[in-house]
Amino acid sequence: MSEQIAFLGLGNLGFPIAESLINAGYDLTVWNRTASKADPLLKLGAKVAETAIDAITPGAIVISVVADDAALEELFSMELIEKLGKGGIHISMSTIGPETSRQLSQIHDWYEASYVAAPIFARPEAVSAGIGNIAISGKAAARESVKPILQTFVKGIFDFGDDAGAANVIKLAGNFMIGASLEMMGEAFTFAEKRGISRQAIYEMLTQTLFAAPIFQNYGKVVASHAYEPAAFRLPLGLKDINLTLQASSNVNAPMPMADLIRNRFISALAKGRENLDWGALAMGASDDAGTTP
Amino acid sequence: MSEQIAFLGLGNLGFPIAESLINAGYDLTVWNRTASKADPLLKLGAKVAETAIDAITPGAIVISVVADDAALEELFSMELIEKLGKGGIHISMSTIGPETSRQLSQIHDWYEASYVAAPIFARPEAVSAGIGNIAISGKAAARESVKPILQTFVKGIFDFGDDAGAANVIKLAGNFMIGASLEMMGEAFTFAEKRGISRQAIYEMLTQTLFAAPIFQNYGKVVASHAYEPAAFRLPLGLKDINLTLQASSNVNAPMPMADLIRNRFISALAKGRENLDWGALAMGASDDAGTTP
Repeated sequence: MSEQIAFLGLGNLGFPIAESLINAGYDLTVWNRTASKADPLLKLGAKVAETAIDAITPGAIVISVVADDAALEELFSMELIEKLGKGGIHISMSTIGPETSRQLSQIHDWYEASYVAAPIFARPEAVSAGIGNIAISGKAAARESVKPILQTFVKGIFDFGDDAGAANVIKLAGNFMIGASLEMMGEAFTFAEKRGISRQAIYEMLTQTLFAAPIFQNYGKVVASHAYEPAAFRLPLGLKDINLTLQASSNVNAPMPMADLIRNRFISALAKGRENLDWGALAMGASDDAGTTP
Repeated sequence: MSEQIAFLGLGNLGFPIAESLINAGYDLTVWNRTASKADPLLKLGAKVAETAIDAITPGAIVISVVADDAALEELFSMELIEKLGKGGIHISMSTIGPETSRQLSQIHDWYEASYVAAPIFARPEAVSAGIGNIAISGKAAARESVKPILQTFVKGIFDFGDDAGAANVIKLAGNFMIGASLEMMGEAFTFAEKRGISRQAIYEMLTQTLFAAPIFQNYGKVVASHAYEPAAFRLPLGLKDINLTLQASSNVNAPMPMADLIRNRFISALAKGRENLDWGALAMGASDDAGTTP
């Protein structure tokens, strides 16, 4: 396999994805705002471009994984999309709002390129292990042609149809559910703790029985022991995502009171100086309220 | 095996538990407020007592599964506990508040009987299948001696120590987490639906990946399709449990804002005449708010 792929954004998630694609035999040209992040990939055989536009091969594939809507919109200038041009496909993996995907999709249309939203559900170590899952949406032909590429680094691909924003909605809904699970465990474990039961004991029973799912088992361990460092996904990113969720739901008049509660927990965590902790630290709010934060 | 067990309460959960014990070879004397519920057990070889006190064998085992704290306190009169007497053990399986367990445990002490709180996590069909899980707490010797009995009808026994109320706290925390999961799915699925994605599609992805646990898979199906009948556990029982949770957490100054939100959803569901629906119908609140209730 020697298919050309431009890869933009080598952050916590982008890096292991790029690595997996190189290992799968793709011919990657990478770009990152901080160029030095690309060094280990150079050794694996990737080319490094000086600018994002330089990385693009007309009519080929570009994958982007950046921090937020603004970063993606800045990167995908008219000039870049024009160079991508006819037959080009943009696999957009950032967690962004559905409206941004729809707008970008339209601009890609103007230049006869295609936009596929493809946010991934995975922590970096899950990407490397190939056990992540991905939601995709966008034009049917483009969706079909990117599946073999995505299959090289994820376990499951879930197809949400033609609306470019649909996959972003799924990602935001999923992240909301993770945030709500953190709060849920924070409240339940703190309730148990104040009633004289160890956080570890309630964690063990509930995550071995009713809540035997990775989210509860992995984050539950973090919440039970208040072990929020090192951060795999920092609190401010969690706030960014819940803000996107509430904006996207507000745009279609779907009230989400539980998401509002989560949002305020994130804001309070930042007010308490926890910006460098993992977003699991959302669950500290319940401990703070009960006077049991260690 | 021909150990004597008195069994009080043949409701949705009590009935299949009693049936399992008879099938395991125990010598059961059953009592139920509505006597006819015992008829099928008679055919299996159970004896039927006319009153709860008549069912008791001094110094033996009694298992109770009743609707609420008041029903249990009425049933376990001083007279009944006195008859149970020295060496007798009460396995108390109802979902009640921890304070009620502590008080009853003390009264059992006066008569040299033992009280073990043993609420079960299982829908009736899970009891019959032997896949339920049980939390136990109370005096160490009594806990040990009831384990072989419990093992005949559950998958896992989780021991929470000497405080008679501890197992009840775990049960209430677990039911709170189920209620919160219902609301979480209600909000996420409604958000997706209003963004043009089918409830079934988001249900499938999230419960096959991050939330691949029985609670989300089973209740998620109910929430995705708004199929709240027949009710396995009716809405008013859910409200009863969340009220117990909030009372037990308030007693130890542990605020639970998510539990407050859930409680108001239950109250609103009753205001809308949904008292005969399964408690999964809690999730209709999000649909009502978004104007999408079918």
